Amino acid sequence: MVIMGIDPGFAITGYGVVKYEGNKFSVIDYGAVTTQSSMKLPDRLLVLSDRLGELIERYKPGAVSIEELFFNKNIKTALTVGHGRGVAVLAAARSGVEVFEYTPLQVKQAVAGYGRAEKSQMQQMVKIILNLPSIPKPDDVADALAVAVCHAHSHRMGAYGL
Amino acid sequence: MVIMGIDPGFAITGYGVVKYEGNKFSVIDYGAVTTQSSMKLPDRLLVLSDRLGELIERYKPGAVSIEELFFNKNIKTALTVGHGRGVAVLAAARSGVEVFEYTPLQVKQAVAGYGRAEKSQMQQMVKIILNLPSIPKPDDVADALAVAVCHAHSHRMGAYGL
Repeated sequence: MVIMGIDPGFAITGYGVVKYEGNKFSVIDYGAVTTQSSMKLPDRLLVLSDRLGELIERYKPGAVSIEELFFNKNIKTALTVGHGRGVAVLAAARSGVEVFEYTPLQVKQAVAGYGRAEKSQMQQMVKIILNLPSIPKPDDVADALAVAVCHAHSHRMGAYGL
Repeated sequence: MVIMGIDPGFAITGYGVVKYEGNKFSVIDYGAVTTQSSMKLPDRLLVLSDRLGELIERYKPGAVSIEELFFNKNIKTALTVGHGRGVAVLAAARSGVEVFEYTPLQVKQAVAGYGRAEKSQMQQMVKIILNLPSIPKPDDVADALAVAVCHAHSHRMGAYGL
């Protein structure tokens, strides 16, 4: 199964496309869609929508996996990131790909084995699980791969009733 | 000029389409796109995107006018409404319609003449300015018409250098 993980943001949206077969991962693509703050909001959302749509079209994932977001301080950031996340979820829905949402706790448990894993531990685990030469940068890309891995593990667990 | 005002939300997104010519308004259509909380997020965003896209296609507005949102308490609401607002702005951008954003202060000043107008005053002004038989319900629809009126007035002021 091909899974596309998305780490939603506004200026930077990370994505990671992995294949998961027979309990083994192979990495197909990863990167980030970035938009400049000099661009107007509608143009930024259009770029994000188009790029994600192209990636979905190219890799035809069986699932899009995206983190549920929790903010504890900045309400303006929440609103802004909500714009990007809405457009990302729409891009998947528009292509008929099912969207799965996971809480940060679920992602940490699925990737690092426990829910209080720190960011650096998560990134190390993503590198090891996916057999990458180094930790992908920026953080948004590693986060996107983590949520893709989370879906693979959750899906497997679901399939085998564990 | 045909102007489509949008009051972005998630469960309810208000819209109002008005024609403004020779300092006179005529109302073309208004209403709300609603989605049920029993629907999944991707499906809700798809409905919102499709419905707004259809309205833009039907009325071919020269401008989409949308309020900037400010929240002072609920961060989860900000994130959720951000999803809807992002999809609404994208729908306009996707159709090649220019999007104009106005702060609540600007909308109040343009519609009621002063920035501290209350909601009930704003609704009365919308009814009077647009010569409606009654105040449109729900509030989101009146708000959408208000931001459309705001753009018409701002645009006029801009054009005449007032």
